[in-house]
Amino acid sequence: MQIAIVLYDRFTALDAVGPYETLGRLPDADTVFVAERTGPVRTDTGRLAITADRTLAEVPGPDIVVVPGGPGQTQQMENRALLDWLRAADATSTWTTSVCTGSLLLAAAGLLKGRRATSHWLALDHLRPFGAEPTGERVVVDGKYVTAAGVSSGIDMGLTLLGTIAGDEHAQAVQLLTEYDPQPPYDAGSPQKAPAHLVEEFRAKSRFVLS
Amino acid sequence: MQIAIVLYDRFTALDAVGPYETLGRLPDADTVFVAERTGPVRTDTGRLAITADRTLAEVPGPDIVVVPGGPGQTQQMENRALLDWLRAADATSTWTTSVCTGSLLLAAAGLLKGRRATSHWLALDHLRPFGAEPTGERVVVDGKYVTAAGVSSGIDMGLTLLGTIAGDEHAQAVQLLTEYDPQPPYDAGSPQKAPAHLVEEFRAKSRFVLS
Repeated sequence: MQIAIVLYDRFTALDAVGPYETLGRLPDADTVFVAERTGPVRTDTGRLAITADRTLAEVPGPDIVVVPGGPGQTQQMENRALLDWLRAADATSTWTTSVCTGSLLLAAAGLLKGRRATSHWLALDHLRPFGAEPTGERVVVDGKYVTAAGVSSGIDMGLTLLGTIAGDEHAQAVQLLTEYDPQPPYDAGSPQKAPAHLVEEFRAKSRFVLS
Repeated sequence: MQIAIVLYDRFTALDAVGPYETLGRLPDADTVFVAERTGPVRTDTGRLAITADRTLAEVPGPDIVVVPGGPGQTQQMENRALLDWLRAADATSTWTTSVCTGSLLLAAAGLLKGRRATSHWLALDHLRPFGAEPTGERVVVDGKYVTAAGVSSGIDMGLTLLGTIAGDEHAQAVQLLTEYDPQPPYDAGSPQKAPAHLVEEFRAKSRFVLS
């Protein structure tokens, strides 16, 4: 099963690596990192580069599409080459998925019309103009479209889809081997749980950044 | 604050990316991926490569050392160049850390003698011959040595250390922005919680692999 994970300048690393490390453990996974050009693609911090091993054109028909998010997503919203590829790949994919603001790219490609979907909590409202129905859930499955909330939620999305495709026991084995028994030292991982002033601070900043 | 994340052939991606995405969000972080040679370094699946931007020799005195684990760790246990670098870097580091079987490399470098430490649940017993005291905890802080359990635990380790260095509020902000509000679809992330036959199966396999 071919899994294409899409890279672009200033993506967020964990958005891509979460699904890679979980969903990518499908028994017959043929995972490939793709981008417009092959070679290293830098993340949002500039400090990490993941190699794109194939161009988008070289991987026209993956079984599973994974689109990560990150600050660089904004610049891709009008990238015709990427959006065209997403539409074409989606036409034959078994699953079309995203993490974080990757869902805005699926939406911009016209793939989430009338679908329930999620995104980074700061970006949820941006789904609506594309005809998608935003939900605050961490992982949303609507038909073959699976979207995950911010950054780390790609791990939960990957395990969820892994279980659906390969069975609960295989997904549990991967959870055990990745020792995914989360014990965050704080309970601030969602806008409902984090200190209110932090949530407000980031909402104010994002109105500026995302507008 | 310079954070050196060590790469070697067949490391596990999430081991490195968890701390990168959390600890690497220190306000003054200067994160650098290092390896014996610069260029792409392949993970255990062979499907992902992260670029080493500097050689070990070019980064002699990082403030924080992060050593990921993965199947490739076994081959590094007698790599004098790496072990010498770890000892030298540790001599001036503020924090020396590991994820998963990365702790076995710290142990092999002689850095965990008499220290409490953790590792991947399948590798815990291998700490003892190096004079370390294995614990089943997810994140273990003993002096300046911070070790994390398997793969995904590097996220919890990164947040823990981030809070210690930059304060609780900064760590909570990073948890909120990475939306780290884990909701695994299964509860099988530790040998205590996973189905017993899976735990046994992997213990049997690892006796073969690790012996």
